[in-house]
Amino acid sequence: MTSTTDIIQSIGKGSIRAIARALSKVENGSSDSTDILDKLFSRQQGFTIGITGPPGAGKSTLVNRMITRYRKTDNSVGVIAVDPSSPFTGGALLGDRIRMQSHASDPKVFIRSMGSRGHLGGLSGATRDASCVLSAAGYSPVIIETVGVGQAEVEVADLADITLLVLVPGLGDDVQSMKAGIMEIGDIIVLNKADRNGIEQLESYVKASLEYMPPGLKRPDVVRISAVNGDGLEDLWDAIDRLVAAQTVESRISHSAVTTLSEILKENGLLFFEKLLEIEYNGRKEAEELILAGQLSPYAIGKKLLERAERIFEHNGSK
Amino acid sequence: MTSTTDIIQSIGKGSIRAIARALSKVENGSSDSTDILDKLFSRQQGFTIGITGPPGAGKSTLVNRMITRYRKTDNSVGVIAVDPSSPFTGGALLGDRIRMQSHASDPKVFIRSMGSRGHLGGLSGATRDASCVLSAAGYSPVIIETVGVGQAEVEVADLADITLLVLVPGLGDDVQSMKAGIMEIGDIIVLNKADRNGIEQLESYVKASLEYMPPGLKRPDVVRISAVNGDGLEDLWDAIDRLVAAQTVESRISHSAVTTLSEILKENGLLFFEKLLEIEYNGRKEAEELILAGQLSPYAIGKKLLERAERIFEHNGSK
Repeated sequence: MTSTTDIIQSIGKGSIRAIARALSKVENGSSDSTDILDKLFSRQQGFTIGITGPPGAGKSTLVNRMITRYRKTDNSVGVIAVDPSSPFTGGALLGDRIRMQSHASDPKVFIRSMGSRGHLGGLSGATRDASCVLSAAGYSPVIIETVGVGQAEVEVADLADITLLVLVPGLGDDVQSMKAGIMEIGDIIVLNKADRNGIEQLESYVKASLEYMPPGLKRPDVVRISAVNGDGLEDLWDAIDRLVAAQTVESRISHSAVTTLSEILKENGLLFFEKLLEIEYNGRKEAEELILAGQLSPYAIGKKLLERAERIFEHNGSK
Repeated sequence: MTSTTDIIQSIGKGSIRAIARALSKVENGSSDSTDILDKLFSRQQGFTIGITGPPGAGKSTLVNRMITRYRKTDNSVGVIAVDPSSPFTGGALLGDRIRMQSHASDPKVFIRSMGSRGHLGGLSGATRDASCVLSAAGYSPVIIETVGVGQAEVEVADLADITLLVLVPGLGDDVQSMKAGIMEIGDIIVLNKADRNGIEQLESYVKASLEYMPPGLKRPDVVRISAVNGDGLEDLWDAIDRLVAAQTVESRISHSAVTTLSEILKENGLLFFEKLLEIEYNGRKEAEELILAGQLSPYAIGKKLLERAERIFEHNGSK
């Protein structure tokens, strides 16, 4: 099973080994990963749920509940647990991962930890491509779990068809930094650990924050749950189902087409300009030395490479 | 004063009008902005201080104090107040801006609000280029103030030679989302409003968080201040001076060369691939329609454009 065609065919037959193989290729940015993704892109049929929030918010417990829920309706469920590089959360994630293993023996649950390693598009690029593989392999939903509301997490959350921001009491109404998350992420804001003190305060803070959203933007639903004892989960499933029902395979592919195309242009643009830099200036190191020597600015280098690249239009005409 | 040479010359003579003109060109991505930046890049002599933290942390009061401090030693001080697009903070920033106007009549203080408007590199690209203009015009320090610890802020903070993360009591030790900031931003962590309840708790939380930093990374200094009544400011100035003294003009230009070159490659790469997309597929809209019609995947489009671009190597040889 080495050729792209073999891998695609085996994925079509549900081979776990072929899926794992494709994921590794995609994650490491292998030379044939583009062909694999090309074949799989239009086969995506399912939907993706992104889940983010601070460490300790109970995201993995919620993911576990969600797996159980979708397994009841015989869906195959994919989980991409995005490993942030921060050592802070490494420990917590590892523990969470083990908890999720209650589904580990279920062949219809595929759990994958994700790093950015060799992927040109970084963590969000790697996650996007992994999600494409799992979705094309028939997993629906594909659940993407990330930690935090920083740069990487917002990007990853943008990939999903439906995004949940999970918060817990104790953050207080002065947690200004959460506002970014509330504004930028979240079709549904999940208030977890609803049995804890401070849940009222958290809910009124969240709702007050939402008041400031620009008109025209859709306000997220706010749902209280306790992932541990199960309270409120039916409300959450209803909220998710409503969002899923409002989308179609076409609307999801359309969203994915727009964002994926954008990112691929960026990734390939950088790849090509790195090559140009190699040819014109023997690569980054020598270019940097020219800058330090005061001979060229980064702006002049950029301009020269762009002009060089644009010569292609003269040589190749319009087709 | 329309030619690039005129603008550069006038900036050299300290013309405020020329500086403002250059900043506008840079911010809007005018066609001649690259030439202006090219000429100015190697003239940067000063250092930049990035200041970030949640709204209400007292950043602008601190910036005011900092301006006063550097004006005493007759430095010209530039301030770039980065306007996040979030409507949340718009109000607060506006107020802060007015407070900073105590220095507005001082011709050696240049304050500029910054949006991302037409800039290819977004907010951080626009800020990077504005900082280049001010630094080359003789302002030192150039203070870059941003709000929050989200994606844009981390990027902007990365630009500065020295970065301060400003926190205030009341965030509590469960503000997990601040950890990203503590880890990713901050040569100096400033604990402002040190006269408030909770300062002890905040300091021990911050210090405990720092324990988890990977070995080899430099731990930030932690300094308590009260920007309003001036307590602790001497300690903060000392901490900044130590960091400034540990750098040289060369080390700063070197850092700037590396990050600026990276970003310019990305920006120009995207620009070029957008043009290729225009030629091959009549632009984004039509490409997206092909994807939705199931005729092509974004991956296939990316691959085709990359192959097309690489034909330049065949036609042009190695020089």
